Amino acid sequence: MIIVTRRGVTDEEIDHIRERVEALGLRTHISRGEARTVIGCIGDEAVLREAPLLSIPGVEAVHPVMNPYKLASRLFSAEPTTIQLGDTLVGGPELIVIAGPCTVEGKEMMSQTAAGVAAAGARALRGGAFKPRTSPYSFKGMGQSGLEVLAEVRAETGLPVVTEVMDTREVELVASYADVLQVGARNMQNFTLLTEVGRLHRPVLLKRGMSATIKDLLLAAEYVMSQGNMDVILCERGIRTFETATRNTFDLAAIPVLKKETHLPVIADPSHAGGRRDLVAPLSYAAVAAGADGLMIEVHPDPETAVSDGDQSLTIPEFAEMMESLRPFVEAAGRILPRGSLTA
Amino acid sequence: MIIVTRRGVTDEEIDHIRERVEALGLRTHISRGEARTVIGCIGDEAVLREAPLLSIPGVEAVHPVMNPYKLASRLFSAEPTTIQLGDTLVGGPELIVIAGPCTVEGKEMMSQTAAGVAAAGARALRGGAFKPRTSPYSFKGMGQSGLEVLAEVRAETGLPVVTEVMDTREVELVASYADVLQVGARNMQNFTLLTEVGRLHRPVLLKRGMSATIKDLLLAAEYVMSQGNMDVILCERGIRTFETATRNTFDLAAIPVLKKETHLPVIADPSHAGGRRDLVAPLSYAAVAAGADGLMIEVHPDPETAVSDGDQSLTIPEFAEMMESLRPFVEAAGRILPRGSLTA
Amino acid sequence: MIIVTRRGVTDEEIDHIRERVEALGLRTHISRGEARTVIGCIGDEAVLREAPLLSIPGVEAVHPVMNPYKLASRLFSAEPTTIQLGDTLVGGPELIVIAGPCTVEGKEMMSQTAAGVAAAGARALRGGAFKPRTSPYSFKGMGQSGLEVLAEVRAETGLPVVTEVMDTREVELVASYADVLQVGARNMQNFTLLTEVGRLHRPVLLKRGMSATIKDLLLAAEYVMSQGNMDVILCERGIRTFETATRNTFDLAAIPVLKKETHLPVIADPSHAGGRRDLVAPLSYAAVAAGADGLMIEVHPDPETAVSDGDQSLTIPEFAEMMESLRPFVEAAGRILPRGSLTA
Amino acid sequence: MIIVTRRGVTDEEIDHIRERVEALGLRTHISRGEARTVIGCIGDEAVLREAPLLSIPGVEAVHPVMNPYKLASRLFSAEPTTIQLGDTLVGGPELIVIAGPCTVEGKEMMSQTAAGVAAAGARALRGGAFKPRTSPYSFKGMGQSGLEVLAEVRAETGLPVVTEVMDTREVELVASYADVLQVGARNMQNFTLLTEVGRLHRPVLLKRGMSATIKDLLLAAEYVMSQGNMDVILCERGIRTFETATRNTFDLAAIPVLKKETHLPVIADPSHAGGRRDLVAPLSYAAVAAGADGLMIEVHPDPETAVSDGDQSLTIPEFAEMMESLRPFVEAAGRILPRGSLTA
Repeated sequence: MIIVTRRGVTDEEIDHIRERVEALGLRTHISRGEARTVIGCIGDEAVLREAPLLSIPGVEAVHPVMNPYKLASRLFSAEPTTIQLGDTLVGGPELIVIAGPCTVEGKEMMSQTAAGVAAAGARALRGGAFKPRTSPYSFKGMGQSGLEVLAEVRAETGLPVVTEVMDTREVELVASYADVLQVGARNMQNFTLLTEVGRLHRPVLLKRGMSATIKDLLLAAEYVMSQGNMDVILCERGIRTFETATRNTFDLAAIPVLKKETHLPVIADPSHAGGRRDLVAPLSYAAVAAGADGLMIEVHPDPETAVSDGDQSLTIPEFAEMMESLRPFVEAAGRILPRGSLTA
Repeated sequence: MIIVTRRGVTDEEIDHIRERVEALGLRTHISRGEARTVIGCIGDEAVLREAPLLSIPGVEAVHPVMNPYKLASRLFSAEPTTIQLGDTLVGGPELIVIAGPCTVEGKEMMSQTAAGVAAAGARALRGGAFKPRTSPYSFKGMGQSGLEVLAEVRAETGLPVVTEVMDTREVELVASYADVLQVGARNMQNFTLLTEVGRLHRPVLLKRGMSATIKDLLLAAEYVMSQGNMDVILCERGIRTFETATRNTFDLAAIPVLKKETHLPVIADPSHAGGRRDLVAPLSYAAVAAGADGLMIEVHPDPETAVSDGDQSLTIPEFAEMMESLRPFVEAAGRILPRGSLTA
Repeated sequence: MIIVTRRGVTDEEIDHIRERVEALGLRTHISRGEARTVIGCIGDEAVLREAPLLSIPGVEAVHPVMNPYKLASRLFSAEPTTIQLGDTLVGGPELIVIAGPCTVEGKEMMSQTAAGVAAAGARALRGGAFKPRTSPYSFKGMGQSGLEVLAEVRAETGLPVVTEVMDTREVELVASYADVLQVGARNMQNFTLLTEVGRLHRPVLLKRGMSATIKDLLLAAEYVMSQGNMDVILCERGIRTFETATRNTFDLAAIPVLKKETHLPVIADPSHAGGRRDLVAPLSYAAVAAGADGLMIEVHPDPETAVSDGDQSLTIPEFAEMMESLRPFVEAAGRILPRGSLTA
Repeated sequence: MIIVTRRGVTDEEIDHIRERVEALGLRTHISRGEARTVIGCIGDEAVLREAPLLSIPGVEAVHPVMNPYKLASRLFSAEPTTIQLGDTLVGGPELIVIAGPCTVEGKEMMSQTAAGVAAAGARALRGGAFKPRTSPYSFKGMGQSGLEVLAEVRAETGLPVVTEVMDTREVELVASYADVLQVGARNMQNFTLLTEVGRLHRPVLLKRGMSATIKDLLLAAEYVMSQGNMDVILCERGIRTFETATRNTFDLAAIPVLKKETHLPVIADPSHAGGRRDLVAPLSYAAVAAGADGLMIEVHPDPETAVSDGDQSLTIPEFAEMMESLRPFVEAAGRILPRGSLTA
C-alpha cells in the first residue's frame, strides 16, 4: 500500500500516519517529494485494506500495490486449472460448449434438446429449474421436478448437467442432481451463497454480475475458493452500459484479461451478452478467438413458445449450423472442437 | 403491448403474429403504415411480457405500454404509504434520519453512537451484524451477538433498529431483533431473499443495486409486496458509472422520479453514494431538497479505527453539526426535522 | 509519480527505469518491498505524464500524485473566482439563474421569454443561434440572424446573453454578440474550439461532456485558461449511464466535488440533466442545496410548439412559480436570489 | 411514430393530440385499449421527431418506428459499400490493416514504421499530425510538417495515409495530403466538422465516441453522407464504462450490429479499445471473427520513447508476429489477408 499525503502535511501528521500503519504490523518507508510525501507500507497489505486510511488527517490518496485475491491469482498456480466435466476437461485443449434452454419446461423438450445439442458437439446440458426472474409474476421454474428431469436426461444422453442455484437452503438439493452449480449474475455478490457452494466438492460456474468489475468477479471466485472448492469456471456474460442495441455489453476484453490474471477457466455466454439470436454466432466466434475455454449457449426446440429468453435462443438446427461454422475459429485458436455424438 | 413489424412483412406473417397473441387471450388491433404494420395488443399485458415475441418471424420491435409493477405503482394507492418506525412515521411530514456505524463493533461504541445520534435528532439506529464484504478475508460482522447489542442499545435509547439481512436462513433470526430489515444493494435481486422478507410483517429497507434501473428497484419492491408485506422503504445509494471521483454516482433524480412512480417512501444514503466524508452534508441537503423522506447516514465515534467504511463515516460532533445545517433545507422542503432527544 | 514494479523485477530493470525517469529531469527514490519495488519520482510530474512508463520492462503500475490541471486548481487561487455577468457576478453571493429557450426561434418569442424570465428573477438570457443537432435533418438554428435577435432583446431588457459557439470559424462572430460563450457538452473535448475561446476576453460557459469525468472537465477548463482567459463557468448537465428514466444521469455530487477542486464557479442545467419538465424544479432545489452558484433553465412561451427540447421546457408561468419555490432553498444555502425586474 | 396516452386521457386531449400530428402532415390511427389509447402516426416520421410530443397534455410515451438515419441504413443500399484505399478496397474480400504510430514524430521513424508494417501486410499507414490531447500541456503534433512527412513516406512506400482532422479550418489542408480523413472519437459529434468533411470527395474514417450509441454513430455518418460524401468507414474503438482494467470497454457486438444496420464498412481499433499492448492481438482476432472489415493498429519502432500512446503500441516485430497469428482467423472468417510487400 502506498499512502500519498496532502500538500502541506505536517511532521506530526506524518508521524501519526506511520504510527497507525506500524500498529497494524507493517513497516513504513518515507519518501519526501517537493509538495507531498509518499509513505510506502511494507508487509501484509491485506491488513491495511480494511483500515480507513483516508480518514487519517493528512492522507490524500491510497494506492494498493497487490491484488486483493490470492487463490484465484495466476501467482497462486502457474498451471491453468482444468475441471472435470463428464469425460472432458474445462480449461484443457478442448473448446467446451454447454447448451440447452433457459428453463427446464418438461421432460420431452429437454430430451429433444439434449439429443440435438449432443449431436452437434455440445459437451454439457444447461437448463434452469430454479429461475431468477425480475418480475415476481414470472414463471420461476419447475423446482425439484425440473432437477429430476435434468437427471433423467443425463442418464439418457450422458451429458453432464449445469443448473443454477439461487438460495443457500437449496444448495445441497441442487448439488444432489447437478454436475456443475451455476451462480447467476444477480447472485455474484450473494456472499453467503458463494460460501455455501464453496463448501461442496462440485464445480461452480460463476457468472459475472452486470456491474461487476473483473476484480469483483475474481473476488467472488475467491469467496468460493477460500472455502476449499477450487473448481470455479468464470463466465463473461455482458455488463450494463448505456448502449441499448444489445441486452448487455459483451466485454470481450475481459476474456484475455482474466486469462492473464487467473489460472481458472473462462467461458462466455453470448446468448445473454447480446440478447439477440442473430448475435450468438458472431459473439461465439469472437469469444473463441479471444481465448475463451468454452461457450454457454441457449438452445430451444421451439423458441417461439419458450417460457423465457426465447428471443435469444437458437433452434436445434441453428445451433448445429453455428457449431459447424465455429470449427475453423476453434482451430485457428489452437483448440479442439469435438464432433457430435453418434447416438444423437 | 405494441408490436411493430419489419418492413416488407407478409400477410401470412401478420396473421401468424395475431394468432399467437390471441392464443394468449388478448385482442389485436391492426394499423397499417406506409412501410410497417403496427399491431396493438389489448388485454392483460403481463401475459405477453414473457412471450418471446421478437422470435416470431416478421416482428421488429415490441413496446410495452404498461409498467410491470402493480402494487408498487402510484396507480395502486393514491395516498403515500407511511411506515411506523418507533414513535414516528417514514413517509409522513417528518424527515427521518437513520444513523449509526457501518458495522456493530461492540456494545460500548454502539451505546455511545446511539446516544450521540439521538441527541442530534436521529430517529433510528443503523448498524450491521451480518456484513456483505467484497473480500472473503474481511470481517463479516458479529452475527447474532451483534443483533443482541442492537437490542440492548434499543432498550437503552428507545431508538428502533435497522440492520441488514443477507441470507434466507437468517431472516427469522434477524427479524426477531430488528425493527426494519435492510436488504442491501448487492442483494437487491436476490429474489428468494426478497420473497422471505415479504412473508413477514416487518418493514423492509430496500437499497437500489449498483446497476439497477429505477424500474428494477420497483420490481424488487414488488417481490416483497407480492408476498403480503407492503411496508417497503426504497433507498437511493448511488449507481456504478465511469466517474471515479466518488465511490458511486448519486442518482439524485431517482428521488423525484420514484416519488412520482410509487406511493412508497424514498430515502437516500449519502454516505455510500459519495463514499467521502466531506460529501455527506451537501448530498444530504440535496436529497432533502429533491423530496426525500429520509436519510441514512454512517456515524462512528472514531472513524479512524472503524472496521469498515471509516472513510465515509462522520464523527458524532460532525453529525450533530450536519443535522443543524440540514434544518433550513428540511423546512424549505416543507418537512419537519425533530429536535434531538433530551436524554442524550 | 509513483512507479510500482512487477513481482520478480530484476536489478537491471530497476536501473533502466531509473535511467529513463532521470533522463527526463526527475529524481528517483527507491523503496523495496517484500515482493515489489516502489520508485518515487520527484520533480515535475507533467513531464512524466506523457512518457509511456508502462511500456518499460518491469513496470506494473503507475500512480500519478498530482492533478494534471494547474490554473483550474484550488491551489492556484485560494479565493473563488467571480465572473461579471451584466451587473451581477457569477460565483458571488447571488444565485444566478440563466433562462430562455433551447433555440432562438424569432424576435417575438425571445422578447416575450426574456421579459418573462427577467420578471421572475433570471439574470441572463440563454438561446441557441447555432445548434448542435444529433440528426443532420434537424433545424440547426437561425445562425447570425439569431445572434442579432439576441442582441436586440438584450437592448430591450438589459439581460446579458449566453449562446453557444460550435465552430472555430464562428468564435469571433458569436463573441461580437454574446456576453458569455457557451461550449456545449458534445464539444467539451473539441480542443481547437477550447483554444480559440481561450484567446478572447469573454466568459466561457463550459458544459460537461456526457462521458467526461470531473477531471476531464477541469482539463477542458485548463485548455481555455492556458490561453489566458480565466473566466470559465463550469456546468454539470448530466452524464450518460444505463438509467433510461431520465435523459441523462444528473451527477449532483459533481457540484461539491468541483467546488472543492477548483476556484471556478459551478452551475447546473437541470433541464438537460433530467430531460423532463417535471424534474426541473426538484433538480434545481437540489443543485442549489449542494452548493451550485447558478442554474441554467430552459423556458419557452409555448413548449408544445418549440422547435427543440420542448419536452423539457418550462412555460413562463411555470418558471415564475419554480423561482418562488426555489427561494427558501437559496436562502437555506446562504445565498441571495434576486427579485425579478420591475420592468417586466 | 406511436403515441401512447396517459391512463384516463380525455377525448378532448386525444383530439388535441390528433390535431397536432395532422397539422404536421401525417395521418393518425386510433386504437383504444382498456386503460390507454394508442395513436399510430402514418407518414413522414422525420417531421414528428422534432415535435415535443411529450409536452402535449395526455401523452405518456412516444415510440419511434423508423430509424432516424437513411443514407447510412441497409435499406438505402442492399450491397455493401466498398471504399478505395490505395490499390485495395475497404469493405471487400480483403481484411484491411491500417498501422502506424499514434503521432508522427519525424521522417525517420515514419519511414521505418511504414516499411515495417508494409512488409507485414498492412495496407495503409496511420499517424497523427494534429493530435487531440486531454491536457493543454501535451504535445499536439507536428502540424503541417507532419502532413509533409506522411506524404513523403507515402511516396516511398506506396502506402496510402490515414490522418486525423480536428478543426473545420484545417479540413482542406489535411485533405490535400491525406488519403483518408480521420474524425476522432472526441469529435464524433462535432457537427460542423462532420459537415465539412462531407463536402469533400475523400474517404472519412469515423471513430465512435466514448459515450456514443450505435445509433449516434450512424447519425454522425449520416451527417457526412447527407453532404454528398458516401465514403465513410466506421470504427469501433471502445466505450466508457465502469470497468477500469482496460482503457475503454471494447463493444465487440457493435461490429455485427453495425454490419446488419448499415452498408458501410466497419473496422476496429484494438489499440485504443484495450489501451494495453498485450490485448492488441486477442482483440484483433476477435474483431475479425465478429466480421470486421479491417483493423487499425498502433505500431511504433520504439514504444518506450513514443510521445503518445506508447503503452499500447506494438513494436514492428510484435506487429509482424501478430499479423501472422491473425491469418488463420482471417481465413476462418472467409476473408483474405494480403502477404506483406516484397520491397519492405
